[in-house]
Amino acid sequence: MAETRLVLMRHGQSLGNEANQFTGWNDLDLSPDGHEEARRAGRLMRAHGFRFDAAHCSMLRRTIHTLHHCLDELDQTWLPEYRSWRLNERHYGALQGLNRDDTIARYGREQVQQWRRGFDITPPEVELDSPHYPGNDSRYATIPRADLPRAESLATTMQRVLPYWKETLLPSPQRGQSLLVITHGTVMRALIGHLNDLNPEEARTLEIPTGTPLVYEVDAGGMVERAGYL
Amino acid sequence: MAETRLVLMRHGQSLGNEANQFTGWNDLDLSPDGHEEARRAGRLMRAHGFRFDAAHCSMLRRTIHTLHHCLDELDQTWLPEYRSWRLNERHYGALQGLNRDDTIARYGREQVQQWRRGFDITPPEVELDSPHYPGNDSRYATIPRADLPRAESLATTMQRVLPYWKETLLPSPQRGQSLLVITHGTVMRALIGHLNDLNPEEARTLEIPTGTPLVYEVDAGGMVERAGYL
Repeated sequence: MAETRLVLMRHGQSLGNEANQFTGWNDLDLSPDGHEEARRAGRLMRAHGFRFDAAHCSMLRRTIHTLHHCLDELDQTWLPEYRSWRLNERHYGALQGLNRDDTIARYGREQVQQWRRGFDITPPEVELDSPHYPGNDSRYATIPRADLPRAESLATTMQRVLPYWKETLLPSPQRGQSLLVITHGTVMRALIGHLNDLNPEEARTLEIPTGTPLVYEVDAGGMVERAGYL
Repeated sequence: MAETRLVLMRHGQSLGNEANQFTGWNDLDLSPDGHEEARRAGRLMRAHGFRFDAAHCSMLRRTIHTLHHCLDELDQTWLPEYRSWRLNERHYGALQGLNRDDTIARYGREQVQQWRRGFDITPPEVELDSPHYPGNDSRYATIPRADLPRAESLATTMQRVLPYWKETLLPSPQRGQSLLVITHGTVMRALIGHLNDLNPEEARTLEIPTGTPLVYEVDAGGMVERAGYL
């Protein structure tokens, strides 16, 4: 029987990585380098003989386009694909879309550093009439309002990712189906923290490379074993 | 309330249209012109203010890529998308992948014309050990073998399309959800034949342009009205 794999990958470099802003749920596309990074990741997985049974990504185009490039290179364009807001990047609240340097000038470096990297420190909430409030974006129209975040810390991101992990993702490899999951840096920290049983300090300081497949193997008993970056 | 729409569209020009072969279930990609045609269709729908709630296409990359171009241009990259073998092109049986001129030289023009355009004339069946038999392609592994075609006429294509229409597609616009469906020439003939109550002769002689949205409007009572090509 072929190996059952769960591959987690952060999207390729986005225009937000270049723009020095708090991107979060802002729907910026991949940069030209990011498109190429995504294709390269697909070719790498193909060269290792990886085949998947389904793919998951966030509701944001930088993961969707990364996924499409990977599937094209894997010659699995036809694979079923599922999107969920629970795989979205952390919501930066009222900081969404702000320039990082402007925010530092306004709130001070220490405060901004705490918002960025504190485990359970939540930035100020986005206003309900802001275009950055997810309830004002038609793509989230079917999500119960009470579930939609107005600002998230790593801790609250983890809380909304884990139900998707437990109820939707994990059962697939446990049934022998290999999954490709394209998501974001903070969600990767949340999932790796959970899977590798990291403490908050370890989880929050993980550096997650863009466009680099992180491979977990799943044994016949449904246990997930980390195999490392490809 | 916004208009509820059902848009059917044939994929953009494929490399098969250029290669003069019986393409059918062969998974050829769009030609460069076909990619541009798909983007143009997306821009046209956006200029008309079209918004969709979900999208459907076949298991073949020429419809999947057409769909992705349309969704990008519509700024709805995030839309849920579903693929089904029931929206695949007609299966050409043992003719799959053959050059049309070679086939005419072997079987005669009249026989080939009957296979191509007869309403209920089925070409010879594909062998079970052929790579063109869908049961040998992993993407169809979850489909019951008895459902997978070994050769199809327009009549038998219609028979496998209509359950998807009735059970999966039609209920959405009847609930007020607008759908974008990217499919193939023969499937378009089958669906238009059914929706517009055409006789077999009318259905089989329909010419279906590539990359051109065919718009149906759905009234509050769930009745489907043809509005025509955009």
